[in-house]
Formats: sequence, structure tokens, C-alpha cells
Amino acid sequence: MPPASPILCISNAKHYRTHITDSGVSVYAFLRRLVFGTPFPTSRVKHERLSPLLGYPVFGADPISSSAYATEEILLTLMAAGSLALSLCLPITIGIVLVLVTVIISYRQTIYAYPGGGGAYTVAKENLGTTCGLVAAASLLVDYVLTCAVSVSAGVAAIISAFPTLSTHRVGLCVLFIIIINLINLRGVRESGMTFALPTYLYVGSLTTLIAVGLWKHLVLGIPPPDLSHPVTATHALTLWLILRAFSGGCVAMTGTEAVSNGVPMFKPPESKKAAKTLGWMGATLTFFFLGLSILAHMYHVVPVPDGDETVVSQIARGTFGTSWFYFLIQVTTAALLIMAANTAYSAFPLLSSILARDGVLPRQLSHLGDRLVFSNGIVILGILSIILVVIFGGSTHALIPLYAVGVFISFTLSQGGMVRRMALQKKKGWLFGCLLSGIGCCATGVVSVVIAATKFSHGAWIVVVVIPLTVYSFWRIKEHYVELARTLRLEEHSPRVAAHHTVVVLVPNLHRGILAALDYARSIGTDVRALHIETEPERTENLIKGWEKWAEEIPLVILESPYRSIVGPVLDYLEEAKHERDGEHFTVVIPEFVPKDWWEHILHNQMGLLLKLSLLFRRDMVVTNVRYYTME
Amino acid sequence: MPPASPILCISNAKHYRTHITDSGVSVYAFLRRLVFGTPFPTSRVKHERLSPLLGYPVFGADPISSSAYATEEILLTLMAAGSLALSLCLPITIGIVLVLVTVIISYRQTIYAYPGGGGAYTVAKENLGTTCGLVAAASLLVDYVLTCAVSVSAGVAAIISAFPTLSTHRVGLCVLFIIIINLINLRGVRESGMTFALPTYLYVGSLTTLIAVGLWKHLVLGIPPPDLSHPVTATHALTLWLILRAFSGGCVAMTGTEAVSNGVPMFKPPESKKAAKTLGWMGATLTFFFLGLSILAHMYHVVPVPDGDETVVSQIARGTFGTSWFYFLIQVTTAALLIMAANTAYSAFPLLSSILARDGVLPRQLSHLGDRLVFSNGIVILGILSIILVVIFGGSTHALIPLYAVGVFISFTLSQGGMVRRMALQKKKGWLFGCLLSGIGCCATGVVSVVIAATKFSHGAWIVVVVIPLTVYSFWRIKEHYVELARTLRLEEHSPRVAAHHTVVVLVPNLHRGILAALDYARSIGTDVRALHIETEPERTENLIKGWEKWAEEIPLVILESPYRSIVGPVLDYLEEAKHERDGEHFTVVIPEFVPKDWWEHILHNQMGLLLKLSLLFRRDMVVTNVRYYTME
Repeated sequence: MPPASPILCISNAKHYRTHITDSGVSVYAFLRRLVFGTPFPTSRVKHERLSPLLGYPVFGADPISSSAYATEEILLTLMAAGSLALSLCLPITIGIVLVLVTVIISYRQTIYAYPGGGGAYTVAKENLGTTCGLVAAASLLVDYVLTCAVSVSAGVAAIISAFPTLSTHRVGLCVLFIIIINLINLRGVRESGMTFALPTYLYVGSLTTLIAVGLWKHLVLGIPPPDLSHPVTATHALTLWLILRAFSGGCVAMTGTEAVSNGVPMFKPPESKKAAKTLGWMGATLTFFFLGLSILAHMYHVVPVPDGDETVVSQIARGTFGTSWFYFLIQVTTAALLIMAANTAYSAFPLLSSILARDGVLPRQLSHLGDRLVFSNGIVILGILSIILVVIFGGSTHALIPLYAVGVFISFTLSQGGMVRRMALQKKKGWLFGCLLSGIGCCATGVVSVVIAATKFSHGAWIVVVVIPLTVYSFWRIKEHYVELARTLRLEEHSPRVAAHHTVVVLVPNLHRGILAALDYARSIGTDVRALHIETEPERTENLIKGWEKWAEEIPLVILESPYRSIVGPVLDYLEEAKHERDGEHFTVVIPEFVPKDWWEHILHNQMGLLLKLSLLFRRDMVVTNVRYYTME
Repeated sequence: MPPASPILCISNAKHYRTHITDSGVSVYAFLRRLVFGTPFPTSRVKHERLSPLLGYPVFGADPISSSAYATEEILLTLMAAGSLALSLCLPITIGIVLVLVTVIISYRQTIYAYPGGGGAYTVAKENLGTTCGLVAAASLLVDYVLTCAVSVSAGVAAIISAFPTLSTHRVGLCVLFIIIINLINLRGVRESGMTFALPTYLYVGSLTTLIAVGLWKHLVLGIPPPDLSHPVTATHALTLWLILRAFSGGCVAMTGTEAVSNGVPMFKPPESKKAAKTLGWMGATLTFFFLGLSILAHMYHVVPVPDGDETVVSQIARGTFGTSWFYFLIQVTTAALLIMAANTAYSAFPLLSSILARDGVLPRQLSHLGDRLVFSNGIVILGILSIILVVIFGGSTHALIPLYAVGVFISFTLSQGGMVRRMALQKKKGWLFGCLLSGIGCCATGVVSVVIAATKFSHGAWIVVVVIPLTVYSFWRIKEHYVELARTLRLEEHSPRVAAHHTVVVLVPNLHRGILAALDYARSIGTDVRALHIETEPERTENLIKGWEKWAEEIPLVILESPYRSIVGPVLDYLEEAKHERDGEHFTVVIPEFVPKDWWEHILHNQMGLLLKLSLLFRRDMVVTNVRYYTME
């Protein structure tokens, strides 16, 4: 049945689906299906639309969860200047909240301006040019990896605070959680609001209760707050630098705020309005938690534990409720939400990578949907990078934090800068006020970026400062490669032609029926057919020549002595030479290959064919052909 | 330059030697050369001829070194019946020495009968049939592995006796020594007598001194011998079974005795006479050491240390000389000789494997000479197997011994049985006496084989009893495979033909210049050319069809929907179907491949071509062709 029409389209989904597992890879396919589930057809791609009630947990898990470690970061830095310095925590928190409010107001504008989704990459690229867009993209990619690493580490810290015996397994637990999140995401749990709703609302509920009860008991009922203080010797003077560092540390509270602006189209219509409402609620929650926890920490004189065996939230919860069931509920919901927040990175990183891959600045494979309609390659890369980070930094949230936030703030700055330029150019109604809002946000976050990068440079931020430009450089190199490739391969001057001459070299280890079949094949495709034999055992050559004269006399046999019994070297040399005899014409190397009946028979045969194939894998201008022979059944 | 004459022989050794390292594998080649040295040309194969003075250390290292642990094995078994039972060591030793003398006398006959080398495999195969030959070969292979494992373990035990702090690194030291011996052998240190001479003669000298001084002091001078005894509680009655087990343990003394008969052609002429002389001296030395050490152990009331922290030889040496420099000399030479003995296995195992491979009962690769003219594959396999044994048995000589000796005694029995049959058939002068000698040897070793296998069955000998038949079975299966293959591939009814029809399927992921080149190639070789596209992103199909109509209209394009975005499955299915359209005709699959300029560009491209190639690797009746495209320089 030669195809009837030139272009033939066969559509039989069922048929090919069953055959995927039948093609000799069935054990692998079975295991794969067991772990990842059956593949989804492309037609199942669809978008779930979210109400604010579900959008709040989906996008809020990441920013809200940062309240679990933001206060602690401030306290840990201030502690260097002794216990008295800890009282500066509250004013610093207020400062950060002010920046947060500016950013949220500015982002509401972005949401209205980009109802199709306005991530920092899109906004910066469209308004400030490709380079700014790529810088924003690189910052975000770095930051997503850190979101995963930091959130999992903090989640594990919450678990360890409640169950201190687990503290020896810190890194192991982190890696385990990352692997579990990875597997779940490879299975393609779509970002269903329900999955996020339970832990988010539980955390919001229990933390609201904690802060409300704490404030009520001590401020309204006047019960004296527990004193958790213990003396800390100052190792450092209380300089402005230290205060700025504490401020930088607290800024992690704001990470994740940009997520909503990315996901506007995921909301029910009117999308922008619902998204903006969600962002508002998220900001309010975060502000309340961050401030509330800092106030309670101030009242209880909480001193953070540097080696991370008990978190500040855990101390506050214990101080308010004792080691009761409610304390454990807070710890467990905190851990659950933090791990949920890591999951946010798993939707953001692969999506951004796929957009970048489609724009040709990342490897194309990142834009391919996997079996379960998720960007599997991106997920795996994110998992590996996070595991590396967690292992290097021993699963310590405090050690990872200096790397965090720099990226977010760079993307904040670029995104808001883009908005200022956009509004200034479009000059829509109220643009001046809008410009002012976004401008303030841009400046504030810009200053904070510099402060974070400077104060935390030696604590790890330098890594990010190095990695972001390197990433942008890679983007350019990759782009260059694809552009060059497309240029070379473009279809302009091609005219079909059948070469006049076709040299075929058949590699001949010895002489038997399989070799003769290969010679027949070679004769049928080429005009100049030669056989090449590398002589490693001279005593066998005479036999070969005798057989050759009888069976294949008409084909020239080239025998190369190889006194060192090497095969690959002489073959490559001969081919190189022979190819240059007629440059530009077809040149084919035929490698006869034995296909055994049973797997174990492989070890009975030289793997020379395979080795030669590998050596020729990247030779240019040479066609490599494998002609198989096998024993009859 | 098309070759002038049909058969062309190019001999330019220098040329190809330099090119071996230039072919893109230079770092690997450099490291290889650093570790293993520059390759040797085949012409350097030659045989060193040995005088008895050098033959004695070369072949004697293995049997003589077994005196270092044979007495200890007897004592360790007897100890189960309490300290009094230890006095049975001496009579058991005398019993074993009697068997040894019989075997040596019998083997002298083999040496004269087979001046070309009469290993157990050769003798048994020629006189008792192939099966007996293969059983002997399997027994010897198993035994060579054990020679390596046991000798290294015993050598390490000697070191640990002198330097007890090393005892925690027992297994590590064993593995290290095996790896070193492996590397040295891969480098191809030819069995030069000089290498063996020093440690062997040092050991012989120091052990002779030890025994002579010990006997002189206590028997002639009448100095009361040191009493090293300490009470041992009997856990076992002194049964005949226990005595037989002790006897079996002591029989390890005889391992290695067969080596000389293998290597007769290595002696200077008259070969047989010199070899027989060497064997005689070896036997005498071994008898003297074994008896001498057993007598001293008896006089000193030596009690062996079960966990192996001090060897019996070490106790005797300490008892005679105290912890003096001479004591350390004995320990060090013992260790050196034992490790030398392990090296014996490295010449015997690869040589026997290569003979078996040439006879078609082992994979052919085992008969190939490596870069340095040694059978590299055999060396590596021996190393790996020994390491596995040493690790499993924790480097304990005593735990390994039950596995040892069974194989040797089976090969002794078969070899001597073969000699009896040979002499009985040839009926040369004095054949009756010869038959009697070999017959006694055959019966003695046969009985000992059964005793060893029975008494040590549950202590590990069962492993060998299982492994030897399995090995023989594998021999048969491998032989079957090669015979069948040769039958299928024999050149009898072949007539050259050029197929009338040639279907070529070109896999087409998209359309560009590289694909058009592949289509050109396909057109130049085939009569029915088709292109196959697997549709994973339906939105791109229209573009492809448009381009196709413009650039490659004359070639039918088959488009298969793949709703699950799998590529390999649909491709394999289509090929299978298309192949059946015209069975028996040429069928070629063309896979266009991109060859990048730089290595890093690989990650920017789908490895789909490679994956397809792997999936098609063992498909029969299908020629797989890779057409490359690349960016212009």
C-alpha cells in the first residue's frame, strides 16, 4: 500500500496509545505508568478558572507562608548586637510593610494593564526592551529555585521545632519532600484550588487565632506576657549597616507577591477585578501576620535560636498556648503551607522556562509537554537545582535567605519600571497618578534590591549576583545558536538533486553471509563500493582474502594493518581520507551488525560495531548505515 | 584514488599508531597511556624461556605460599574438639604429604607426556572426552579466582598479625591489593622470573631458617619449647568427621601444584626434564615447610586465633625469635609471597579463558590480546570476581578456604584419570607402572575431592558444587550459539543480487535544509521514498504541509497523530507495517541528525534521533541510516 495521496494523515489515537507500551519497553512503561499514571492526550489541555476564594490559596500560599520566617530573619540579624537590639524588630517590620503596600498597589495597576497575564518578563520585555526582560526572567528563575529550597527548609524547620528528635535528619527530610513534590508535579496534579485551599485556610485560621489570642490576653486582659528572653552577648555594634541587613532579611516577606499578576487569566471574568481583589486580600493577610508576629515577638522578648532547632513562630505559639494540641496544629499547618509554597515554584518555574524556550533563549525541550501535560523537563530541573541548594546549605533557612529576595526585588523593580514607561507613553486617563504610584514602587524596590545585594553580598547574595548575569549571557548564546541554525537551514536556494557519485565503504571484520548481505545492500545504493578490513590478527588475513576472491571478488577490499590491534583509529583515518577523494558527493559507511536472538548472546559478541557507531556519531558529511544480520529462527 | 587492485594492503604502522590518540578521544587516551603505558605491537609476542632456578619461583610461589595457611586450617578445625585434639595436626599433615607426593609423582609423568603443556583441560579433553575437559576447565577457572582471593586474604592476614592496628581495614586492604595486581597485569608485566625470584627465595630462606632454628633449639640443644597453649573449651566431639574436615582443610597445601604441567614449554630445553626437576624441588620445599611448621606448632602447643588477628606462622615465628626484626622479616616476606601467589592466578586464568574462548565455549572477546599484549578482558573479569569474593567473605582466609581446593582436586582427578587412560591405550614401555602411579594418584585425589566436598559442603563448598556445573552448562550454551551462528552464516548458497525494490522512510520532525538533504539522499538510494511525521503539536502541522507542497511535493508525506505526544511508539508501529508491504526487499529508515559545532549545543537539541536509533538498535530486517546536517562554519 504505497500512500495514495502525497500527504496522508492517519488519525488513530487509540491504536497508538496501546502500542506505546508494546514496543519492547514494557517493564519501563509499566513502572512509569505506576509512578506517573497513564498519559493524557493533548486535547485535555484546558484552563481551570478560579474565584477569589480559590485564587487566594493558590496564589497566596507562597507570600503568606513567608510570614513564618520573616520575623525570625530580622531577629537573627539584630541578635548580633545583643538582646536590647531585638526591640528594633518592630520598626523594621513596619518599614517593610510600607514597601509591601507600595508594591501591592503598583501591582494592581499591572493586573489591570495586563489582563492576559503580566509577569515581570513580559512587562519588562515589552516596555524596557529584551535585555531588561531577560534580566527579569533570569532573576525570577533563580528566585523560583530559592522559593522551593527556602520553603521546604522552613517547613522542615517547623516540623523539627515540634519534634526535635528529627533534627539529625534535616537535610534528608528536605530532599525527601522535594522529591515527593517533584513526583506529584510530574504526575501533573493541576493547580487545583482545592489542594491549596485546606492548608492555606487552616494556616490563616490558626495564625489569626494565635495573634488574636496573644494580643487579647496581654493587651486587653492585661495578663503579663511570658518572658522568653535570655541574655545574648553582643558580638557586633548596632550600626546602620546591621539595621539595613535586618531590613534586607525581613524583605523575604514580600517574595511571591508577583504571582497573581502572572496568573490573571486563570481567574473567572472579570479577570482583572477578581485578581486585584485577591491580591488585596493577600497583602492584608500578610501584613496582619507579619506585624502581629513581630509585635508578639517583641512583647515576649523572643530570642531566636541560631542553629534553627526552634523557630520564632514555634516559641510564640508555645508562649501563648503552651505545648498544647493547638501548638502542634500551628506547627503542622505551618509546615504544610510552607511545603505548599514550594509547590508554587513548580508551577511558575516550568511555565516561565517554557515561555523562554519558545522565545528561543532556553533549550527547546523545555517547551515540550510531557505525558501528563506538564512541562516535565522544567520540573525535573527545578527539583535537581533545589536539592543541590538544600544539600549545600545543609537545609538551613537562615543560610539560604541571603540568596533569596535579591532576584524578586530585581524583578519587582524592572516590572514596575516597565509599568511607569508604559503609562507614560500611553498617557491614558489618570496616567500621572499611576506613574507616580508605580514610580514610588519602582524606586523603593530598586533601593531595596541594592540594599539587599550590598548588605548580604558576603553572606551569599554574591552567588545570585554572579548567577543572574551568567544566566542572561546563556540566554543570549542560546538565542544566537538558534538564530544561526535557522539561518543555515532556511529553505531558499535548495534544488533537489541526485548525486552522480556515491562512495560506500563497508566495514568487514570477516566474511560470512551477513557480510555478503551488507555488500549487496552497499552495491544497491552506491556507485563506488569498497570493503575495509582492519587486520588485527594477521594469521586470519589469508583466509579472508581466499574467501573474498571466491565470494566477493568484484568489490575492492582494503586491508589495513593495525599492529597495535586498534580498530577505531585506522577506520576513522581511512574514512577521512576516502571522503576527501570526492568532496561534496554522497559518502556512506556501512557497519554490518549482528542482532542476537536472546539478550545474553550480546556478551558473546564484540561490541565493535557499537563502538564504531559511537565514534562516528558526530562526524559530518558522512552517512552511517547499519545493516543487520541474524541467525534464522 | 579508487583502489587500484581489488585487494589492497596498506601497511603503515607508525601512521596509525599516532592517529589512535588523535581521533577525538585524546584525554581518555592520555589517561590510558599514563596508567597502562603505550601499546605494544603484535610482533612483540614472544616467549621467555626459564631455567629451573627461575622456574622454581615462577611456578612455586603459589604452592609454596600455601604452607603459610595450611597448618592453621587443620588446627582451626581441630580446635572445635578442644586443645587436646590439636595434637592430631601432625598425623593429618603426614597424611596430606603422602597424597602430595603421589600427585607430584603422577604429574611428572604428565610433564613428560605433554611437553607442549598439559593442563588438566587439555589432558582430560584429549583422553576422557570434551565433557571431562570442560569440567576440569570449569574447576580450574573457579579455583584460580579462589587462588587470588585466598592468597590476598592470607597475605593481608600476615600483615595484620605484625601490625594489628590495620585489622579494621582488612577488606579494604584486600581490595586495594587486588586492584594493584590488576593494574600491574593490565600493564602487562610479563611473568619475568626475576619479579618472582626475590620474594620467593626470601620466603624460602627465612622460613627454612625459622624451621631449622626452631627444631635445632628444642630438639638438638634441648631448650624447652615455649608453651603458647591456652585452654580451649570443646564444642564438638572428636569424631572421624571432624578429623576428615581437618584433613580437607589442610589439603589447600596442594593447590597450585598443577601449574608446572601447564607451563612446560616455558622451560629451556630439554623442557620436560627441567620442568620435572622444578616440580620435584617445589614438592620437596612444600613438604619440608608444611611438616616443619606442623611439628613446631605441635611442640609450641599453638592455639589458632579464630578471628584471624594472628596467624599460626606468626605465633611460631614470635615463639622462636620473639618480636625481633627477623620476625618482621618473616611476616613481610610471607605477605609478599602470598600476594605474588595471587599474581599466579593472573597468568593462569586469562590464558585458560583465552584457550576456552578459541575453542568457542567462552565469549570470543576473551581471546583478544589487549594493547599491552595481555588478555585484558580475562584479567578484569578475574579481578572483579576476586573482589566480590573478598568482600562477601569479609577478607577472611578461613571463610574462603572451604570453597577452595574442591576445584583443584577435581582437576587433579580428571587430569590423572586422563593420564591413566592415555598410558593404557598407548601401551608404551613401562606403561603398567605408570598407570599404577597415576591410578593411585587419581584414586587418592578423587577420594579427597569427595571428602572435601562432603565435609565442607555446608561451610561453603556447596557454592563451588553449584557453580562448576553451571559453568559447564554455560560452556555448552555458548558453544551451541557459535555453532548455530557459523551454520547460519556459512557461505554456501549465496548469490549476489541487487534488490528490485527499496523502500526508504525518512523521519521528518519539521522542514528545513537538513531535511531536504536527507530526502535527496533517500531519493538517491531508494525506489519508494516516503516521509514520516509524528504530529505532537497539531498547530505546527499546517505550516509543515504548506512547506512540503512547496519544497518536497513529489515525496509522499505520512502524518501520524500522536495524541499522547509519544514519538517512538508510532514510528516503530508505522515501520513495522510498512516493512510488511514488501517482505524480503531492502528497507531503510533514514534518521536526519543535527551535528552541533560545540559540545554545549547538544543540550539545545532534542535527543529524539538518538532515542529512535536506540529503539531501532535491534530491529531485524531494517537498515538504519543517519544523515547528518549542521550549521556552516
